[in-house]
Amino acid sequence: MTTINDIAAKLGVSKSTVSKGLNNATDISDEMRKKILETAVEMGYNNKRLLNREKKLCIIVENMDYATPNQFGYDIILGFRQMAEPDGWTVEIVPVDKDFQRSIPYGVFMIQNGYLGAFVLGFSLIDPWMTEFKTSKIPTVLHDNFIHNNPRIASVGCDSQEGFDQAVKHLFDLGHRKIGLISGPLESYVLKARYNAYINALSKHNLAIDDAYIGLGYFVSDSTREHVQRLYNLGVTAIICSHDIRAISAITECMDRGIRIPEDLSIIGFDDLPMTVYTEPPLTTIRQDRLALGKTGYYAMSCLLNDVPISSVMLRAPLVVRSSTGPVRRPY
Amino acid sequence: MTTINDIAAKLGVSKSTVSKGLNNATDISDEMRKKILETAVEMGYNNKRLLNREKKLCIIVENMDYATPNQFGYDIILGFRQMAEPDGWTVEIVPVDKDFQRSIPYGVFMIQNGYLGAFVLGFSLIDPWMTEFKTSKIPTVLHDNFIHNNPRIASVGCDSQEGFDQAVKHLFDLGHRKIGLISGPLESYVLKARYNAYINALSKHNLAIDDAYIGLGYFVSDSTREHVQRLYNLGVTAIICSHDIRAISAITECMDRGIRIPEDLSIIGFDDLPMTVYTEPPLTTIRQDRLALGKTGYYAMSCLLNDVPISSVMLRAPLVVRSSTGPVRRPY
Repeated sequence: MTTINDIAAKLGVSKSTVSKGLNNATDISDEMRKKILETAVEMGYNNKRLLNREKKLCIIVENMDYATPNQFGYDIILGFRQMAEPDGWTVEIVPVDKDFQRSIPYGVFMIQNGYLGAFVLGFSLIDPWMTEFKTSKIPTVLHDNFIHNNPRIASVGCDSQEGFDQAVKHLFDLGHRKIGLISGPLESYVLKARYNAYINALSKHNLAIDDAYIGLGYFVSDSTREHVQRLYNLGVTAIICSHDIRAISAITECMDRGIRIPEDLSIIGFDDLPMTVYTEPPLTTIRQDRLALGKTGYYAMSCLLNDVPISSVMLRAPLVVRSSTGPVRRPY
Repeated sequence: MTTINDIAAKLGVSKSTVSKGLNNATDISDEMRKKILETAVEMGYNNKRLLNREKKLCIIVENMDYATPNQFGYDIILGFRQMAEPDGWTVEIVPVDKDFQRSIPYGVFMIQNGYLGAFVLGFSLIDPWMTEFKTSKIPTVLHDNFIHNNPRIASVGCDSQEGFDQAVKHLFDLGHRKIGLISGPLESYVLKARYNAYINALSKHNLAIDDAYIGLGYFVSDSTREHVQRLYNLGVTAIICSHDIRAISAITECMDRGIRIPEDLSIIGFDDLPMTVYTEPPLTTIRQDRLALGKTGYYAMSCLLNDVPISSVMLRAPLVVRSSTGPVRRPY
């Protein structure tokens, strides 16, 4: 266990200087404070003192809406707080962007603010702090991202494979044999996982895997405009989308082009956003229980704070069948 | 929420009869008691009354030694108890065999004994209760087994893929290109997972995957006797074993045949049992942190008891490098 004495010895400064650096005192130089904080991070200093004062965790949010109950992040944050606060934790929400991440190392940010752990939402593979997570000693739980071999970092998310297995089985039982995928680009950990889950689920049912049945694209409506009609013309009778937002866009696209759902084409989403009940027709989708995801985040955090080095926690992802899927009508 | 009234109505008996059945009273027939218990299970009756009286969980153990600190199950059970008992739970250890499982349905056993959840160790795919787990409504955490789509059942275990990735990378960096596997038969969920992890790890390094480099067998020393020399003759320079016990048997086999470790053959185990420090040479192995596994089991149980439907929790499986692995000496 690294102490203030160890940091002082390493830097050749007094214990009180180190203490000032860790406590944001104003009578030392910014340069010295930075050096002290970075050394503290490097040596794995654990600010236990804070345990007796204030137990603080943060939820770091990048590129995810969470302000209102209809938005994806709202229930995740609520679920985490519902578990953490009764346990005596203060939970602060910290929105960040890539510039902010470039302006301060993750470890320094955490020590400076007295956070003992972070739950990280909405990061992609190119977020700058992702690199630091590979070696960080701070208990950190990542939603929909994965870091190899670091026992202080855990991952939580929904079980994409189980979700796609059910979706493909449901379509297979309805007679579908050519099943397409419309997804965002594979630069994100979770979209790669869903892509692989799609491939695996098809091969479990001995269905044709064909690159032509897959449509990737960053912009939602651009990509449905490009791919829905194309897949339909190829004889695809059902499309699974990587997110509900894309599925809803696909429904709109079909409406514009006179493709009937589910008579001509079945559509499945992923997320079960509140609005999916109200689409026309209501959307069959793979459910992410966001309240449970948030609670899971807290359980994972509890493991890490107790030195239980979990790597991942997966949540069930049940298929919710509504009206956007139906039996195949078109002959193959 | 199913009540005693619901059970009484369904069976056409009085509420007090149902209550007697659930409480093991002696003044009703065995046949009626069985009917009541089975109906309670079928209707998802949750014996909440017990929450106010005694919070009881059980650890069900089949085919795993746990009596002494050197045995595999000891620390798993200890870790679970270390987390559960401070939370106010009584934890009882229940050894079972297949005959016992055939004698009483799982759900009836749990209600009869007032257990609100079970942590299940050592089950294989052919244990009779495995079938019941598919539909059971009782919070149940399985070690090294997996049940699809049931939100009341969770799985905990070590991340075999991460373990094998590190083992194969370690061997690759030492110059090994023909890497074998000696494993128990693939009738168990976890041995299948390790087998797949071996295949994936080799393919990530573009190494030859050859069925001839794989030796499977139920009996430990029979299978090392059959496969060690055979793999060695094929030019295999390193063998990963599915358990430390097999790795230690492989070391003995090599000693008998004058195959030097690690000069002629590198050996890697899986588990990091206490004895692996004392083998000659000390064994390089993939670590299962059994205390942490037990704690993870309790965290998973907490999720299920709080209606957070997790499907799996994976624990890190770091490679512990000792002296049974070394650079390739034999020319390919």
